[in-house]
Parts: sequence; C-alpha cells; structure tokens
Amino acid sequence: MAKKKRQAKKAAAACVQCDVQPETKKVEQPHKKALVNRVRRIEGQVGGVLNMIEEDRYCVDILTQISAVKSALDGVAVKILSNHAQGCVRKAIMEDGGEDVIGELLGIIRKLIR
Amino acid sequence: MAKKKRQAKKAAAACVQCDVQPETKKVEQPHKKALVNRVRRIEGQVGGVLNMIEEDRYCVDILTQISAVKSALDGVAVKILSNHAQGCVRKAIMEDGGEDVIGELLGIIRKLIR
Amino acid sequence: MAKKKRQAKKAAAACVQCDVQPETKKVEQPHKKALVNRVRRIEGQVGGVLNMIEEDRYCVDILTQISAVKSALDGVAVKILSNHAQGCVRKAIMEDGGEDVIGELLGIIRKLIR
Amino acid sequence: MAKKKRQAKKAAAACVQCDVQPETKKVEQPHKKALVNRVRRIEGQVGGVLNMIEEDRYCVDILTQISAVKSALDGVAVKILSNHAQGCVRKAIMEDGGEDVIGELLGIIRKLIR
Repeated sequence: MAKKKRQAKKAAAACVQCDVQPETKKVEQPHKKALVNRVRRIEGQVGGVLNMIEEDRYCVDILTQISAVKSALDGVAVKILSNHAQGCVRKAIMEDGGEDVIGELLGIIRKLIR
Repeated sequence: MAKKKRQAKKAAAACVQCDVQPETKKVEQPHKKALVNRVRRIEGQVGGVLNMIEEDRYCVDILTQISAVKSALDGVAVKILSNHAQGCVRKAIMEDGGEDVIGELLGIIRKLIR
Repeated sequence: MAKKKRQAKKAAAACVQCDVQPETKKVEQPHKKALVNRVRRIEGQVGGVLNMIEEDRYCVDILTQISAVKSALDGVAVKILSNHAQGCVRKAIMEDGGEDVIGELLGIIRKLIR
Repeated sequence: MAKKKRQAKKAAAACVQCDVQPETKKVEQPHKKALVNRVRRIEGQVGGVLNMIEEDRYCVDILTQISAVKSALDGVAVKILSNHAQGCVRKAIMEDGGEDVIGELLGIIRKLIR
C-alpha cells in the first residue's frame, strides 16, 4: 500500500512533454538551452554585484542591480512553474487525479510568494 | 545653482564610516570581505540552479533552490541597505538634512518591496 | 470556431468540486464560510491600520500591522489558488488538456510573485 | 542608565514634522487625511474580495483583486516609510546619531521585503 503510494508519486513526477524515467524524477525542461542561457546571465549579474562591492560602488547602485537579479530569478521561476504545470502536473492529473502533485505545486508557490 | 545642487548630491553619497571621495561616489562596505563571500556563495547557488536544469532535475527541486537564492539576495540587500542608512544616509542628514538621499533610499526600497 | 473556443474557455472555468454553471463562471469556494471569515478578519485588520493612522500611532507600529495584513492576504491567495488548482484547473485538464486554464493560472501567479 | 536609554528611544520616536509628544510615541502622518482615505479605499477593496467569494465569483478574478490590494498596501507602506524616514529617523539622527531608530527601520524593511 505504502509502496503503491510511492509509485504513484514517482509516476506523478514524470513529464508528458519529454521522454523521462519516473524512477529518477528526471525532467528535461522544454527549450532547455534557452533556459540555461537565461540562468547563466543571472550568474553573470550576481558576479556583477560581487564586483560592484569589491570596487566600492555606491550602495544604491548595488541595490538596483540586486533588484534586477531578483526580477530575473522570478522570470525563470515562472517559466519553470509553467513547464511544470503544462508537463508534470497535467500528466499526473490525467493519470491519478494529481492530488499529491497539486499539493506539492502549492507548497512551492507559497515559498515563492512568501 | 545647479552646480551647488550637484555638489550637495555628491557630498550626500559619501560614507561616514569610511574614507571615501564624494566625487567618485565610492563607498567601501563595512565588513566588505564577509559581504563579498556572501555574494560569492549566492553566485555558487545560481550555478547550482544552472546545473540542476542541465542535469534534468525535478522542477520543484529547482524552484526550491531558486527560492533559497531569492532569500539569500534579500539578506544581502538588507545588509547593504543597513550599511547605507548607518553610513551615507546618516552623514547626509547631518550635513544638509538629507532630503535627496532619503528620497533616493525610498526609491530603492520601493523597488525591493515591489 | 471562435464560439467553440469560447465554450471551451467557459467549460474550463467550471469547478469539479461544486455544482456550478460554466456559463456564469461561478465557482463556490470549498469551505466558503471559513474563507469569508478569514477575509473579514483581514478587513478588520485594515480598519485597524486606518485607526492607527487616525490616532497618530507610531509609524513602525503601523508598518508592522501592514506587514501582517500582507501575510494574511498571501495566505488567502494561496488557499484560493489551491482550490482553483484542485478544482477548475484539474477539471479543465481532464476535459480538454487545460492549456488555456494553465496559462491563466501562470498569469496570476506571476502577478502574485511579482 | 536603562532609564536614560529608554528616554533616548522615546525621543527618537518623535517626529520633526509635527508637534508630537515623545513620551506617547504619537506621530501625526503628514497629509494624514489623504492617507486615511487611501487606507479606507483598501478597506473597501478587501470588502470587494469578501463579496466576490460570497457571490461565488471566478477564482482568478478574486486573485487579481487580492493582487491589487497587495500593491495598494505596498504603496501605503512606502508612503509611511517615507514619512518615517523624513521625520522620525531624520530627527533621531540629528539628536543622537539615530543608531536605535535606524536599526528599527531596517527591521521593518526586512519584514516588508521578506
């Protein structure tokens, strides 16, 4: 019974949009390359914040850059949330009603909204 | 007249806690090394997000990591805001009442609160 | 064709958990009475903020109260989001794949995350 | 000694822009009437959310309204923060350097940024 529940959870973690193995919970993000580049740019922006502090740049200029990084991260989060809803969540709902996956989705939205 | 205003602005951007030149708006953050290390850790966390996407990790795990990065960035922002208030803003208020600097401070807080 | 799309949209807006008419997009929230009471308490908290300003209460005390109102609103938003995902979104996905409804869901999450 | 600290704190809570008694920590907000009206509108908006739930309105429409209430609250918070910085904080800095008041300010900003 407990095992069955675990299997349902594993199945729920798979993604309709891609050829993934539920056991490993692997999900290839659609347009993965573009998403990777987007996060790489954010990595560069954080490096920019680091340089600004090292170069004694004006506080407000650093804070403006931090605000931009936060916005960029929110953009990536919404993109991954969207992929997750279109993929994993949709699949789980079709397969088993998706109760667990929807609960998990709301948990992460709660963290991101704060 | 306009020049005088500009000079007031420059003076306001200097920091009481450090030996800086107002003309260049340079502000050395107190405990700069610790702050730099903190941002370097955030850079590493963003690199972690990047790897998770490349390795096809589960969407919700990636989003949890993004949420952690946002919290860490907020922590750094509050620290720099605090330095700015204790340093630049305090000095400007003592020198010229600080009207400009307070306006600027509120502008960046508005961005960070959103 | 356009009419068919509109009908799909209407259907998507209905809720599995309740007996609603899709044409009117009416959705009775589960545990509606508890939710109404929760929002009524928030209304009271906002009235509290109003009184604090009228009674010249200390700025930081008012801001603390505003912060509490925002948290309470986030709690209600997450609850309604959860109802929406468990109800309307799940139903739409089962009926027509739910593409429109998922897009709409992400739009509102984007606004709430900001 | 402890008493002296308390007195410093009380003094710090007074507002330069208005005729207030530090002992009572009373601060009349500048443009108080406009601010009260703004909060009254927010109270009305929360009442609107309440009605929408009672009338079984569509989840996403309710969430859009909640998002608008949050934005309006942020606007009021920034206004009061601005009054506080221009008034109480500025005065405290001029009087005693303002260490306590700046610490308190950062505490509330941290809560509002989250």
